[in-house]
Amino acid sequence: MEIGSIILMLAVLIALARLGSLLFQRFGLSGLIGEIVIGIVLANLVIGDWSILGMLDVVMSDDGAGIHENLNYEVVEIFAELGAIFLLFGVGLETRVRNLMLVGKAAMFVAVLGVVLPFLFGLVLILAYDGNINHAMFLGAAMVATSVGITARVIKEMNVLHTIESRIIIAAAVIDDILGMIILAIVVGAATSGEMAIGDVVKVAGIAVAFVLAIMAIAMWVVPEIYDHFMKRKMRRIHTEHKDLEAEEAHKEDHLGKLIMAVVVCLGVAWFADDIGLAAIIGSFLGGMLLADYAMEWGLEEKIEPITLFFLSFFFLNVGMQVKIEDCLSPAVLGLAAIVILLAVISKYVGCGIGARLGDKTLDKMSSKVIGIGMIPRGEVGIIVAAIGLAAGVMSSELYAVVVIMAVATTIISPPLLVKAFKKRYPDGCPDGEECLIKE
Amino acid sequence: MEIGSIILMLAVLIALARLGSLLFQRFGLSGLIGEIVIGIVLANLVIGDWSILGMLDVVMSDDGAGIHENLNYEVVEIFAELGAIFLLFGVGLETRVRNLMLVGKAAMFVAVLGVVLPFLFGLVLILAYDGNINHAMFLGAAMVATSVGITARVIKEMNVLHTIESRIIIAAAVIDDILGMIILAIVVGAATSGEMAIGDVVKVAGIAVAFVLAIMAIAMWVVPEIYDHFMKRKMRRIHTEHKDLEAEEAHKEDHLGKLIMAVVVCLGVAWFADDIGLAAIIGSFLGGMLLADYAMEWGLEEKIEPITLFFLSFFFLNVGMQVKIEDCLSPAVLGLAAIVILLAVISKYVGCGIGARLGDKTLDKMSSKVIGIGMIPRGEVGIIVAAIGLAAGVMSSELYAVVVIMAVATTIISPPLLVKAFKKRYPDGCPDGEECLIKE
Repeated sequence: MEIGSIILMLAVLIALARLGSLLFQRFGLSGLIGEIVIGIVLANLVIGDWSILGMLDVVMSDDGAGIHENLNYEVVEIFAELGAIFLLFGVGLETRVRNLMLVGKAAMFVAVLGVVLPFLFGLVLILAYDGNINHAMFLGAAMVATSVGITARVIKEMNVLHTIESRIIIAAAVIDDILGMIILAIVVGAATSGEMAIGDVVKVAGIAVAFVLAIMAIAMWVVPEIYDHFMKRKMRRIHTEHKDLEAEEAHKEDHLGKLIMAVVVCLGVAWFADDIGLAAIIGSFLGGMLLADYAMEWGLEEKIEPITLFFLSFFFLNVGMQVKIEDCLSPAVLGLAAIVILLAVISKYVGCGIGARLGDKTLDKMSSKVIGIGMIPRGEVGIIVAAIGLAAGVMSSELYAVVVIMAVATTIISPPLLVKAFKKRYPDGCPDGEECLIKE
Repeated sequence: MEIGSIILMLAVLIALARLGSLLFQRFGLSGLIGEIVIGIVLANLVIGDWSILGMLDVVMSDDGAGIHENLNYEVVEIFAELGAIFLLFGVGLETRVRNLMLVGKAAMFVAVLGVVLPFLFGLVLILAYDGNINHAMFLGAAMVATSVGITARVIKEMNVLHTIESRIIIAAAVIDDILGMIILAIVVGAATSGEMAIGDVVKVAGIAVAFVLAIMAIAMWVVPEIYDHFMKRKMRRIHTEHKDLEAEEAHKEDHLGKLIMAVVVCLGVAWFADDIGLAAIIGSFLGGMLLADYAMEWGLEEKIEPITLFFLSFFFLNVGMQVKIEDCLSPAVLGLAAIVILLAVISKYVGCGIGARLGDKTLDKMSSKVIGIGMIPRGEVGIIVAAIGLAAGVMSSELYAVVVIMAVATTIISPPLLVKAFKKRYPDGCPDGEECLIKE
């Protein structure tokens, strides 16, 4: 193993991502789009035999469908995944179950309408386009899942995590992802066996719902018990020993210990979610929620942030690196992609917007706009769905390119619109309601 | 690629390392030895076909000499390397060139005597033992390099980084590592070509010295210029724009930007050091030194610490995982190992202790003891030297096992002795001299 080549690759990729981010910020755009664009450039800038990725020993697979990549690219993929996992963990740390349940009904409406509409739009479009039911189902499924990573980053950057709109978006994205997994299970089952196995669908749905409810119950009733138990023991120990210096050292050690425990919870729940067929990022979000009541006290967020920052650039670079320019340049693909992008944007915007109004009568038009826009980005989830279809041989490489373009386009379109919508919704920074804590 | 299996492995390994650390701390021992012991247990606990590592899909190579490992173990190795790199970067961040130069003469004496004595002891012992000059030279070389990672962790844990002893140890360890690289180059050259190529030796030595001097010059004269340039520009911008809110946001963004820049510097210099034939950790230490004057202002240390903590457990686990118990159980190996350990400890303790007294007349016996003990651990550097010999076919697997035992033993012996010596040297926490800032 060439550790030197990996260190060089990490340094150069982090530096380039940062450069892209700064460049786009200079023009008033979101920095993460700059990172994605750098990813696109990296994957497509090939001059003869020379490319930056080649210089860094990064060899990617050709079709995203299981061909073995080399170690350097596998490191990029692992770091990208860890970046998304820690980002969502950080969002989870700031999401208390009690607060999430306040927006439960609205989030449910947003999620369901935001899943049904895109799926139907995609299905009907492709049935009309080439009449292939498998193509149609996979494209529909790829249009379903909101990539909460992108929206979460914007929400964190703008410091509007505690607004009602943000909470609904995040809760809805979780439900939405679960619905997306269920739809994916249906589509894969139908495509490979030729029929829908109702039993499998019910099983996936049951597991997903049970998991989320179990985590919420643990966060509300079990974690506080454990916390009280340890606090009492600690108090007793400090009380009996009277050693101020040691207590202080133990306190510092304690904080680092808490961080390690938090990392273990984050990765543990992420693994469990992945293992039962959900996305790892859903798991890490729920893992963060487990500790949300104590995150502030333990200083977890500020300690997790540097870890997230270290890994996160790779996530956005990798989203961009999935785009193969030459696959996107045929007029047919571009035309179809334009229609799919339009439908993807409209279906989420309208579906989630209506869902928000139906689910919570107190929300006004401005709020429903924020929520609709926040749910637009599809990002890597759609690409993963399309890649599964491609690997199973029930998706054309043409439609795969369309999905990639759609995923990247919705990811690029959403952040600036979301920033604008939030600024319009909260023109003075913060309204009267205690739910909004824009400036803490 | 099975991302789920990697996430699970990371979670379990971090949790186990933490468990080992807490267990050893409960018995008054250093936590990092607990992590190393967990590594030994992990690599050797095989019950029939079952092992914890197997359960985690970790497949290690059999002899440390180039056989391909699987992705999960490669991730452990990469994380281990990054842990050591960030640890030394953190130490570098707290090491100002000006302060280092104050102890330059003493450090030089400590390093040179601490290299010559162990090399000669090892050489003579093995010549007497089996008469093979290659074996003798490699064992001597493996006894040379101090593993500053272990000592640095103890120094940071005890918060005695700013004592004169710590500064001498760290400076000496850097010089020592450079001398170690030169000796390794000589030994490899002599073993493979049958003669010593003086030209190559001079080249390696010249490159190493030039690199360190160049970094120190850059830290002293170039970095402050760049800093002033950007500060002036920033001041001008804030002055002309008068936007407090944006300035504040820019300030926060700025701090994250600084962290990213620091990470790039750390990895960049680490790569460069690796590329010119030095160790990557020497590079990251020097990279930290480049930014040491501004680390406090930019809050770099507290932001690098969580990243270090995330990776560092893998470093200590991996040191332990190199120990194959069955190679260590023959009486011949154990007997030889006992003598080698004794010589390794005595040669550094005496060599560095005398060096300290010769190099700085103001140091008393207590200080020279602290320095002698601080230089004892060999850790992974000795193992790497032995592995190179094994791969080149000029080292027996028996002697490799001896080196591994010696490296682990010196690593385990040193921390508790160092803690005791520091406590004896500074019984009241902090003396009068401004050099000691035990409690800041």
